[in-house]
Amino acid sequence: MEDKAPPPTTVLQPIRCKAAVCRKPGEALVMEEIMVAPPMAHEVRIRIICTSLCYSDITVWKMKDPPGIVPRILGHEAIGVVESVGEDVNEVKEGDTVIPTFMADCGDCKDCLSNKSNLCSKLPFSVSPGLPRCGTTRFTDLNGEVIHHFLFVSSFSEYTVVDVANVTKVDPAIPPNRACLLSCGVSTGVGAAWRTANVEKGSTVAIFGIGSIGLAVAEGARLCGAARIIGIDVNQDKFEIAKQFGVTEFVNSRSLGDKSVSQVINEMTGGGADYCFECVGLPSLVQEAYACCRQGWGKTVVLGVHKPGSVLSFDSLDVLHTGKTLVGSLFGGLKPKYDIPVLLQWYTDKKLELDKFVTQEMGFEDINKAFSLLIEGKCLRCVMWMNK
Amino acid sequence: MEDKAPPPTTVLQPIRCKAAVCRKPGEALVMEEIMVAPPMAHEVRIRIICTSLCYSDITVWKMKDPPGIVPRILGHEAIGVVESVGEDVNEVKEGDTVIPTFMADCGDCKDCLSNKSNLCSKLPFSVSPGLPRCGTTRFTDLNGEVIHHFLFVSSFSEYTVVDVANVTKVDPAIPPNRACLLSCGVSTGVGAAWRTANVEKGSTVAIFGIGSIGLAVAEGARLCGAARIIGIDVNQDKFEIAKQFGVTEFVNSRSLGDKSVSQVINEMTGGGADYCFECVGLPSLVQEAYACCRQGWGKTVVLGVHKPGSVLSFDSLDVLHTGKTLVGSLFGGLKPKYDIPVLLQWYTDKKLELDKFVTQEMGFEDINKAFSLLIEGKCLRCVMWMNK
Repeated sequence: MEDKAPPPTTVLQPIRCKAAVCRKPGEALVMEEIMVAPPMAHEVRIRIICTSLCYSDITVWKMKDPPGIVPRILGHEAIGVVESVGEDVNEVKEGDTVIPTFMADCGDCKDCLSNKSNLCSKLPFSVSPGLPRCGTTRFTDLNGEVIHHFLFVSSFSEYTVVDVANVTKVDPAIPPNRACLLSCGVSTGVGAAWRTANVEKGSTVAIFGIGSIGLAVAEGARLCGAARIIGIDVNQDKFEIAKQFGVTEFVNSRSLGDKSVSQVINEMTGGGADYCFECVGLPSLVQEAYACCRQGWGKTVVLGVHKPGSVLSFDSLDVLHTGKTLVGSLFGGLKPKYDIPVLLQWYTDKKLELDKFVTQEMGFEDINKAFSLLIEGKCLRCVMWMNK
Repeated sequence: MEDKAPPPTTVLQPIRCKAAVCRKPGEALVMEEIMVAPPMAHEVRIRIICTSLCYSDITVWKMKDPPGIVPRILGHEAIGVVESVGEDVNEVKEGDTVIPTFMADCGDCKDCLSNKSNLCSKLPFSVSPGLPRCGTTRFTDLNGEVIHHFLFVSSFSEYTVVDVANVTKVDPAIPPNRACLLSCGVSTGVGAAWRTANVEKGSTVAIFGIGSIGLAVAEGARLCGAARIIGIDVNQDKFEIAKQFGVTEFVNSRSLGDKSVSQVINEMTGGGADYCFECVGLPSLVQEAYACCRQGWGKTVVLGVHKPGSVLSFDSLDVLHTGKTLVGSLFGGLKPKYDIPVLLQWYTDKKLELDKFVTQEMGFEDINKAFSLLIEGKCLRCVMWMNK
């Protein structure tokens, strides 16, 4: 046998590109030129096609204390094309279309090998300022200063570097301005109803907070065949929008007089909803959701992002005597590499609604406008194109 | 067709019999003669064959404030024979052997008709001082003064009156000094593993508190095929007994040095137990149990009886990020009329251990001795015969 010649070595170069950098907490992102280092082992460098804005970006953007950190490139809902890969990357190659996700799927830890968990224990979720394997960053500004990562994605940049465990290869034919939503928000909501709660056909669902995540829960519940989907929010205007996502009834929690939400829901449903979803991130709402749940089989699913240090309190005897279930759901219990392609297929088959989530599209340079729209509650998902 | 003669009407008379009455909280029960009124509609009067002592009797016996009340006839684990029935009772007749339970099964409410709930909503569980339909009592002392009921059973009396929804007809051939355990404790523990948690074959189970309930959980987990059953208790002596119920490993929570129980369990199991059961009734233990649970799929089952007003607190982000489940279990999630006969069959088939739970047998007149033994931790179940 002949000795094989070593493969030609391509030395990957840093890329200079535009990024929207969070320089000060809560202040407008700064559109600037940055350097994106080549991917290291197990990493891929991606050219972002489009990115959308999720409320978690806003939450962390405002944070002055850890896990807040500056300078940082936020953004974690996106779709892109692999520009180059580091060593030991076999799953994807240059030119592949991928959706990056904050949830990893290493494929070989106990969690990734189990069909019961989506919480990779080798590369666990965190709001780390670096990449998952080494904690370091691939971004620098033109002065050579480090810029931090966000949720292992950092999609508010023309190019980013992501661990291969955090990307899902998808069909390039899928419209990128829809597919990017599956990076976080829509997957989280749909998954919470479908995977975490496993909503039964004919059941009653109550959703606390009907922003994008809550509407995605409604969409998941509708797909599962829920008979009644009750949206609870402080903003009456949301009901008209919510109807388009399968919400059948609306409770304005600010117009109940002497009654609590749980009293109202218990009356409406004759004893409580079969499933309650807390999508806001307030401990008091989790407790209210739990109180709204049907005794005997009711499930309360927590998917709102709570402030660090928040505490959920329950009466012991209420827990013991009602047989209710409380469960948390990160990324809707979905395994990104397996479930994102399923959701995309549902979209192609016109089963899953994605179009209506996109209320605005704009160029990446208008990102601060997108922040304002989301803060003012004037959008569900704002998709930003990198080259529009 | 001939007109049928009306059935002969038997006017049921009050019965004078012996009962152990709790006259003052925490003081020795008083063995006295009482009157037991005839059963009203939907009720049955039962001659108790034997009764056993459960820790909840002690807990309520000590209570000076509601739901504590005196004078009261405690006791809720028993077996007996139907002496007479009130109107509208068709399910059982005079002479039938029955197990009374604090859990009702009315057979026609939404819960009783569902296979997902064991919490009858028509006759809900409570620590009421009366009978479930009307709240009144069938006991008086010889001065005509009312004596209260306990948990709809009040088995520390030669005769008691119970709602038909609270009795399960059983095979009279079954040894009564074993069958009575299924009235509460053993059913609760076995059911929590079998029905509430649905313990998977090969899984790891951690049990907080290995008294009777905890050992019954172990028995249920063993029946479900758990591979490792870890008992956690402050009393090292319990391990030798626990081994007989399938407990494979023991953690003495008072001998861990600087480590917490959850650290130790996480190390022993490589990330946490698949199922944790809190059988003591302490909020701090529920939190410790939750911390011992495997991320991604771990279930914490609460079955200890907590003090009224106790609060369970959890870190919001811990709930959100770990995907763990918290659930309460009353009577182990069992439906008495369906599941008690199943457990009795398992006993007959020598699959389910009941014999070893009975550490003492005595005459009913020695009931205060049984109280002392249980308080001193010197027994699992003490069975008292009414006619020994």
